[in-house]
Amino acid sequence: MLSKNKVKYIVSLQKKKVRDEERLYVIEGDKLVNEYLISGILIRTLIAKPEFINSIPRGLENNIDEIEPATHEELKRISRLKTPHNAVALIPVPQQEFDTPGILRDLCVALSFIQDPGNLGTIIRAAAWFGIKNIVCSNDCVDAYNPKVIQASMGAGIHVKVHYSDLRSFLKDALKERVPVYGTMLEGKSVYDQKLTGKGVILLGNESKGIPEDLHPFITNKICIPKFTDAVHGIDSLNVGMAASVIFSEFRRRVLDENHESA
Amino acid sequence: MLSKNKVKYIVSLQKKKVRDEERLYVIEGDKLVNEYLISGILIRTLIAKPEFINSIPRGLENNIDEIEPATHEELKRISRLKTPHNAVALIPVPQQEFDTPGILRDLCVALSFIQDPGNLGTIIRAAAWFGIKNIVCSNDCVDAYNPKVIQASMGAGIHVKVHYSDLRSFLKDALKERVPVYGTMLEGKSVYDQKLTGKGVILLGNESKGIPEDLHPFITNKICIPKFTDAVHGIDSLNVGMAASVIFSEFRRRVLDENHESA
Repeated sequence: MLSKNKVKYIVSLQKKKVRDEERLYVIEGDKLVNEYLISGILIRTLIAKPEFINSIPRGLENNIDEIEPATHEELKRISRLKTPHNAVALIPVPQQEFDTPGILRDLCVALSFIQDPGNLGTIIRAAAWFGIKNIVCSNDCVDAYNPKVIQASMGAGIHVKVHYSDLRSFLKDALKERVPVYGTMLEGKSVYDQKLTGKGVILLGNESKGIPEDLHPFITNKICIPKFTDAVHGIDSLNVGMAASVIFSEFRRRVLDENHESA
Repeated sequence: MLSKNKVKYIVSLQKKKVRDEERLYVIEGDKLVNEYLISGILIRTLIAKPEFINSIPRGLENNIDEIEPATHEELKRISRLKTPHNAVALIPVPQQEFDTPGILRDLCVALSFIQDPGNLGTIIRAAAWFGIKNIVCSNDCVDAYNPKVIQASMGAGIHVKVHYSDLRSFLKDALKERVPVYGTMLEGKSVYDQKLTGKGVILLGNESKGIPEDLHPFITNKICIPKFTDAVHGIDSLNVGMAASVIFSEFRRRVLDENHESA
């Protein structure tokens, strides 16, 4: 049986402050927990119905420190959802080195003040799909271990390192290393026409305010997704998650094209 | 003062059944109401704070049948949000002809069983951005006038006609007219390599089940967005809204490229 204190503890991990202190975050859902298990990620505590526990493939239980069988009612108490799933797990926040030269060796993403957890989750999911391994968030971005981010990213965070840092100094380093910084701005050049490289920083800004002025000097290439409509009013922009998907796709397509040409 | 009955009536429009009977839907938010006003769309009833009403540019009030000044408390009663905006409006559901040959003359989108309102809203927003004027939804898709769809589409529905129809018979007509049907499927050919045309149907399927089997015979070109990661587990697919954005972008880029070449 799940003790009252344990329930309270798990629920408290919905707060960033507690997650930061405990270095733990919560994932919820049969599919998500299974993906973590299969990916070989260490699970500190698994709270699940006995039938879920019994269905864990042999050997994978070695990735779990502690298993707590729970009833539907108990899962309901720790769930964020109206109808709880069969499994919830506590995962240690990964220790990851902020290795600027390593990050700048490949295509990466920098996010300035992304506030909506759904947007950050979508961007992480798109990054994982398009094989982008590092996202550098400004310190005022929403927390990547926020339960809504985890939900929107569908566990894609397993494949992408999300760092928090001072973007000014990160972008300064990019300039020093002569790595192009692609800033997405309404007045940018069409991403379809812009020269794109396999190495670079894709900089995306806040949902309504865009990229803050103090970061503009670091942008070497302004890009935009052209609008194909003659409607003058409305539709100011694509949502930042959609824009990220389109831009990541365009970078990767070019790299493919280059490979074709050289093949 | 907003009468109790009026409050009840507006709240009842959150239900599809009532919207269908009344042929009215609700939009909420200063920005959204302004966009409708500027676009010249008829507003049946505007419920707003006096300061919002006073800020309406001269001439545009002709687009409003009825104006009801309301207090913060009254707006709170009709709002779906914890903190209400300053304006809510009731909009007549547009009468739109389902003109199959007209729709098939240009690039259009067909959606099978899209359930999540956020996803439908995102797809409408992407369609508007990329200048796609018609979306044909299967009858089991979520309602385009659902408040959550309106919110996610950010009013882009002004620029896109969303039809509900039997997809089998629509796609049959496309085949008859020799219009290509591009089905997005995991086993499809990379959208970057596939021949794309300026005229065609982009068919997207349900969030977890994809395109139903009975529609497969109508697909002339299977397409997919290639995954650029070596991770074997997790990330089954991009979210359907993200996939739509990437695919619409790719179609439009090609058309641009063709124009460049012929220019």
